[in-house]
Amino acid sequence: MQFKGVGKALPELVRTNADIERDYGIRADWIYNRVGVRQRHIATHENNTSLAVDALKRALEDAGMEFGDLDCLISASVTFDYVLPNRSSLIKHAFTRNRDNEIPCVDINTVCTSFITALDYAACQIASGNFRNVAVVSSEIGSKGLNPKSPETFSLFGDGAAAVIVSTTENEEAGVRSYRMKTYSDGAYDTIIPGGGNVNHPKDHPYEQELYSFQMRGPRLLKLANSVLPNFMQELTAESDQPLNWVVPHQASRMGLKLLSGIKTVRNTPIVQTLENHGNCIAASVPLAFVTAVEDGRIQDGDHCLLIGTAAGMSVCGMNLTYATS
Amino acid sequence: MQFKGVGKALPELVRTNADIERDYGIRADWIYNRVGVRQRHIATHENNTSLAVDALKRALEDAGMEFGDLDCLISASVTFDYVLPNRSSLIKHAFTRNRDNEIPCVDINTVCTSFITALDYAACQIASGNFRNVAVVSSEIGSKGLNPKSPETFSLFGDGAAAVIVSTTENEEAGVRSYRMKTYSDGAYDTIIPGGGNVNHPKDHPYEQELYSFQMRGPRLLKLANSVLPNFMQELTAESDQPLNWVVPHQASRMGLKLLSGIKTVRNTPIVQTLENHGNCIAASVPLAFVTAVEDGRIQDGDHCLLIGTAAGMSVCGMNLTYATS
Repeated sequence: MQFKGVGKALPELVRTNADIERDYGIRADWIYNRVGVRQRHIATHENNTSLAVDALKRALEDAGMEFGDLDCLISASVTFDYVLPNRSSLIKHAFTRNRDNEIPCVDINTVCTSFITALDYAACQIASGNFRNVAVVSSEIGSKGLNPKSPETFSLFGDGAAAVIVSTTENEEAGVRSYRMKTYSDGAYDTIIPGGGNVNHPKDHPYEQELYSFQMRGPRLLKLANSVLPNFMQELTAESDQPLNWVVPHQASRMGLKLLSGIKTVRNTPIVQTLENHGNCIAASVPLAFVTAVEDGRIQDGDHCLLIGTAAGMSVCGMNLTYATS
Repeated sequence: MQFKGVGKALPELVRTNADIERDYGIRADWIYNRVGVRQRHIATHENNTSLAVDALKRALEDAGMEFGDLDCLISASVTFDYVLPNRSSLIKHAFTRNRDNEIPCVDINTVCTSFITALDYAACQIASGNFRNVAVVSSEIGSKGLNPKSPETFSLFGDGAAAVIVSTTENEEAGVRSYRMKTYSDGAYDTIIPGGGNVNHPKDHPYEQELYSFQMRGPRLLKLANSVLPNFMQELTAESDQPLNWVVPHQASRMGLKLLSGIKTVRNTPIVQTLENHGNCIAASVPLAFVTAVEDGRIQDGDHCLLIGTAAGMSVCGMNLTYATS
């Protein structure tokens, strides 16, 4: 599997810590010191589909391809414009409604690590000869589910989207070297949006900010991540004999990134950090960091990258990947 | 890929057409003649997770397995208890919170055909040696998103869940013979729940029955299905040299099943119909029909089955499968 193109899209509106201090009384320096974010993009006129479409357009342009060159479209996102149809079908509709383009649209959701799981799925499909060119898109608007009364999560999250196009290659060094995911269920309810599904359906539970906002037991999750990540990463990287060039993590939080950087397996490997500028963009975090580092030239052809993240559920998911453009 | 076990779960409450006539003034005989449903199960104390857990428990029992024997859990559903975490993580949590069971939890969503796509994913993972035993569960509660002012959809849908456990085998005849999915985007917005996502978020658009209910342009969808299904099914079955024993379709509607039964490829093949008793159970329809026909002995070891369905998006998805228990 080679990478033919990458792209990203961010909402027009940037909300700085100074904006948050002015509007919500949460101190700007506290936000930066505690949460690690300086600014985040917040959707106004954009929606999940439009951001995904913009990111995918740029990835197609980068690849020198047209939508019609794709064989499959995968959406790897948590938030959505509509409960149904699925996200990928709406993205495709924005590109073409012609009957001569019938590529399948699949959504894959492992919460914040959806992009990594979807990339593994794409790699399997390409390896088995089912598809030549697959687009994987993550697009997230988490900002509607934030509560200013929870200053830490309110200032942590941002909106954004990123896309990659992956393709067949004869380069045997290219692509997935190892992939691994584990779900640790003692943390299943530590990250949740209680309202909006069937348990607290809008029909029975009218909108109320706390119920419909993201809730996170941060310290419990950090403790859980701390207890499982070192072994997980050791196992994941042990399957490859190549030294790592880059760690591309989910931008969970300042504390999460700090925890990661202390793990022996990656202690000497640079970590791509976009948290300061984008915040935590849920499942779009990993591809946004990846695309940013490819676009600015940090990640080079042949580099070995570790995509890694924790997700609500609570899961850890990682991929050891050789980035190749041929 | 062999089938080790199957199971299903239906909510306790049965709502008959007579109940609907009494409570909503929609004539019982009109419902049966028009929609094809006599009764449907409606969740009251159940939720997506509890139905999924019950179905999976039965599948495990049928397989003579315990949850700890599984290597991966896939949820293939449209409706959900919570926006996050994903559905499969909550199902796993109900079975075990022990740190010694860390199997990955993945959600796959191609709307009404999610089960077929997830089964293909499971088959790929098993074939590539990643997993030995995979559970695929579909669990749907669509009843909260129904509007009695749309009598046809209100009386069409039911709630329910079904699960299968698939495993490695040395039987080369067992499992997926062909799989195919196509998305026809001219029908992207013909099936939709407008409210509840980011476009009409509960924050900005308080609950209102029509906005938060399932909307379907039935005649347009039937026309689209009619124009694409014959070729699709011809292509799907042409890849196998075995005659079909069973068609196991999505229980979309009476008209949808009638359309299917007239298609040349399957004209002489019996169709498993559960619409009368269960209604359209969204993504749980295909596995509910499959599990019902396995449990009552219609589908026998070695039978060739065509799983087929249309989905919001609008997609058609099908799998040509040899059902084998070894």
